[in-house]
Amino acid sequence: MTTAQLTEQIRKKKSFLCIGLDVDLKKVPEGILKGEDPIFDFNKAIIDATHGHCVAYKPNLAFYEAHGERGWRSLRRTVGYLRTEYPEIFTIADAKRGDIGNTAGMYAKAFFGDLGFDSVTIAPYMGKDSVEPFLAYPDKHTILLALTSNEGAFDFQTQGQGGMELYKKVLSVSQTYKNSENLMYVVGATKASYLEEVRKLVPDSFLLVPGVGAQGGSLKEVCKYGMNDRVGILVNSSRGILYASNGADFADAAKVAARELQRQMEEELLEYKKLK
Amino acid sequence: MTTAQLTEQIRKKKSFLCIGLDVDLKKVPEGILKGEDPIFDFNKAIIDATHGHCVAYKPNLAFYEAHGERGWRSLRRTVGYLRTEYPEIFTIADAKRGDIGNTAGMYAKAFFGDLGFDSVTIAPYMGKDSVEPFLAYPDKHTILLALTSNEGAFDFQTQGQGGMELYKKVLSVSQTYKNSENLMYVVGATKASYLEEVRKLVPDSFLLVPGVGAQGGSLKEVCKYGMNDRVGILVNSSRGILYASNGADFADAAKVAARELQRQMEEELLEYKKLK
Repeated sequence: MTTAQLTEQIRKKKSFLCIGLDVDLKKVPEGILKGEDPIFDFNKAIIDATHGHCVAYKPNLAFYEAHGERGWRSLRRTVGYLRTEYPEIFTIADAKRGDIGNTAGMYAKAFFGDLGFDSVTIAPYMGKDSVEPFLAYPDKHTILLALTSNEGAFDFQTQGQGGMELYKKVLSVSQTYKNSENLMYVVGATKASYLEEVRKLVPDSFLLVPGVGAQGGSLKEVCKYGMNDRVGILVNSSRGILYASNGADFADAAKVAARELQRQMEEELLEYKKLK
Repeated sequence: MTTAQLTEQIRKKKSFLCIGLDVDLKKVPEGILKGEDPIFDFNKAIIDATHGHCVAYKPNLAFYEAHGERGWRSLRRTVGYLRTEYPEIFTIADAKRGDIGNTAGMYAKAFFGDLGFDSVTIAPYMGKDSVEPFLAYPDKHTILLALTSNEGAFDFQTQGQGGMELYKKVLSVSQTYKNSENLMYVVGATKASYLEEVRKLVPDSFLLVPGVGAQGGSLKEVCKYGMNDRVGILVNSSRGILYASNGADFADAAKVAARELQRQMEEELLEYKKLK
């Protein structure tokens, strides 16, 4: 999928919501656990209920790998279902991988080639040759961690002298990589004021913004500092939607929660005149 | 496994060799491909042939994930085989994960709890709360990327002012984490002279050193700058052993290659008087 197609979807649905499919079997309704593939069944119900209000889904790989082969199968079925039933949806493998050249190539093949995700999150620590094998795939997107939404982001990401903190170096150095037009960046909502700094360095890139809701970030602040001409942001919500109810009505409750976020996003899109 | 037990193994086998199980099905002998689980069959043959000359095995997760559920099963069978048949061997999941707290906890459970690895490699970019969930497991080890062996290491890891490059910050800040005694570090052999700087900051920690052989690092230099009182280094070799021959004699050839490295290591252990 191209970023132009992604922007088109955002304008059509009046939403830049990404739903994180971080399925914790301890939190799903009991009825779901009786099926043969409860993670997929849960995802399918959530997707069918919410796809009209979001433009992207983001499974976090940890929640699948924790179940070994069965989890991997649930992941493959989930992304396969999205590609078949809702091909207009942007898919993100939240994998946060990062390894040397030939190994990065194996990961890129796994996520883009075999599973068919549109994008994958990547950690920048190992530099250029750990990122470029992903960038080589046309119309696939590499979402580099820049400034994450957790406490530990202050350990290294915001450290540095002369106004050149590490996350800024990551933004500017990565823009020199081959096929850098296929880069997007993770910038946490809990640090929304940093978005102003981020936009000075990458005015045109899409940003994936976690941390709105459960982690305390403000949607209004994210829009104020993060939006660009083509909207340019995807805001992720996971727990607030997936576990809006732990009863048999979980999918309906998820739909209500997603629609409420979509409504707030529509207001912002109107406020900043992003709808044609 | 404790680090004392690891050192004991090193002295007993006169080897600090780690063999990277990065199985590329394009490079294995044709006969292997006929089996039902060729990755496991290849690993088993390599392990049976080489275990007397090494103290650790390190599967790189990318090479397993590239095969989806089947690859994950091969990984589980490989580590299960090691735990059952050769429980004295130290096992490393080369995963390079790094995610926020609750997600890091899922990964820790997957690698330490379910699969039963002794250690896992972790990227430091997301800081403290992405690392501590791994450190919480007693007698399990978290191998943090400090200075990697690839070209891209110079993008960020060696950047910084006032003599405080990022890899040094990673070493010193991580030593303040809770249960930091469970930390080890990745330091590439291709940058052996940096090992002197590394040892100033983490004199007691075990170092996992990739990049000897195929990537051009020198074993002699690694030993000169990296060894500590309890040896304190694991040197990894992958391709030079796994693909020493691509014929039916691949396991015998791997054994010869591993024994040759062990012999060189024994010389170094004698040179630096590390054998009791």
